[in-house]
Amino acid sequence: MSNLKVALIQRSCSGTKEVTRASCIEEIRRASTLGAKLVVLPELHDGCYFPQNEEGSNFDLAEPVPGPATKIYSAVARECGVVLVTSLFERRGAGLYHNTAVVFDSDGRMAGIYRKMHIPDDPGFYEKYYFTPGDRGFNPIRTSVGNLGVLVCWDQWFPEAARLMALAGADLLIYPTAIGWDPRDVSDEKEWQRDAWVTVQRGHAIANGIPVVAVNRVGHESDPEKIGPGLQFWGNSFVAGCQGEFLGQAGVDDDELLVVDIDLDRSEDVRRNWPFLRDRRIDAYGDILKRYRD
Amino acid sequence: MSNLKVALIQRSCSGTKEVTRASCIEEIRRASTLGAKLVVLPELHDGCYFPQNEEGSNFDLAEPVPGPATKIYSAVARECGVVLVTSLFERRGAGLYHNTAVVFDSDGRMAGIYRKMHIPDDPGFYEKYYFTPGDRGFNPIRTSVGNLGVLVCWDQWFPEAARLMALAGADLLIYPTAIGWDPRDVSDEKEWQRDAWVTVQRGHAIANGIPVVAVNRVGHESDPEKIGPGLQFWGNSFVAGCQGEFLGQAGVDDDELLVVDIDLDRSEDVRRNWPFLRDRRIDAYGDILKRYRD
Repeated sequence: MSNLKVALIQRSCSGTKEVTRASCIEEIRRASTLGAKLVVLPELHDGCYFPQNEEGSNFDLAEPVPGPATKIYSAVARECGVVLVTSLFERRGAGLYHNTAVVFDSDGRMAGIYRKMHIPDDPGFYEKYYFTPGDRGFNPIRTSVGNLGVLVCWDQWFPEAARLMALAGADLLIYPTAIGWDPRDVSDEKEWQRDAWVTVQRGHAIANGIPVVAVNRVGHESDPEKIGPGLQFWGNSFVAGCQGEFLGQAGVDDDELLVVDIDLDRSEDVRRNWPFLRDRRIDAYGDILKRYRD
Repeated sequence: MSNLKVALIQRSCSGTKEVTRASCIEEIRRASTLGAKLVVLPELHDGCYFPQNEEGSNFDLAEPVPGPATKIYSAVARECGVVLVTSLFERRGAGLYHNTAVVFDSDGRMAGIYRKMHIPDDPGFYEKYYFTPGDRGFNPIRTSVGNLGVLVCWDQWFPEAARLMALAGADLLIYPTAIGWDPRDVSDEKEWQRDAWVTVQRGHAIANGIPVVAVNRVGHESDPEKIGPGLQFWGNSFVAGCQGEFLGQAGVDDDELLVVDIDLDRSEDVRRNWPFLRDRRIDAYGDILKRYRD
């Protein structure tokens, strides 16, 4: 298990679900021919980022899990012999929807799911309208390539989520993501935002002594209501090692298939030298469970 | 309160406590002539980094709080009209010692203390031998320049500490520090270590939407037992803003007085755009209080 070859499929989206999905599948196959044993797609990879608006008909995009999408991706994982991290719009019941990562093992078996726990809501990212916050907590998904701490996008900003995955034995953290700018933001501000996004995740790697894999959407998607300037997804997918060091980083403008080798054994070594888990003051962290200490 | 001029006194140490302290006082005065309203000294600034060995006679260096050291620093804070963050070796009682940050307000009043909660112990940093872990938790210290989330060195690696300070209304995080390398470490490893140290703290700034001030010791200190190669403290003191952006950064080799302007009002703005505190899943964080989720 020491060396793991992981493929990050950084993609732009356009066209129908069928077209988009077909191109995802093509990329998974290409990743597998490059020797990847773990393949990660970005958040909600089967179409445009629909939470850019609140539009009731978008709920029609959701599918049950298991369902048509999982059947297709399960078959691809088995065909390619890869562990596959997908990100789907799940219809759990009538009027009950989640933003759900589904992981398939290399034999096609559904290894587990993670329902996005932290749900954002700000102009252009109206996710609270669509997604019920997950109710299954933070639990790594056991696969043949390791214990995967799969989290989704907005979860990236919360050290608690990363820590809980690490405490439950995650071998690495994986974030399918769809993050971008309002194209009207000033350039300095854009750089800070992207840099902050990278930095906070590298921080999770460091604080927990485990690698982080972040796979982002890329490219411009226009506003379906033609009111705003749309969203510019910033790509920049990356892998950081257990000390936050860059193991690989994609560009910011284009589709890219990034294949990176991760040494999963390094975690033990790094944690021996930086034994943060040894010294956590669990007797004094109680107020973490409060909204605010006022 | 919007703009705060903070001085970071990055220093090397040598000589007796009296000599070292005198030079600290000189630096505080110099910081005040440069307009600083908040002055931060590195960890255990009154002498060499004695936890490099376990040596019983070093306990003689400890002083009560309040005591001789606090009397001196209180007078300097009042004289200069600055809020002053010091870091002392505290004798709390017979055989009971702490690594304690003491904060003085600009009128010389002792505004509060913080006893280091996370205590490291690895070759060259035998702190568990000297310092009883703090028992006062993570509470900001209220001063005339703001609510100071003072933490110390090893605390830097723990997102929980930063979060608890932020939840208690800290306006900024402050880390007096003494961190360095074993000079025998290979060069790549050294870079990773220092970069990780910077990155994890910038991560705290980002995750909590507040600035971070880290003030490190600098220079080489030889091993008093003449067995090892001593420690090379890596300087690199810095200030990061609420999105983790660098507001100022000192060099890695020399003593330096770094004066940086911090806009404390920016926190409100950044947190409106990135409302992480709104979305924390406090219902699902319970296991943070466990040592390990096994």
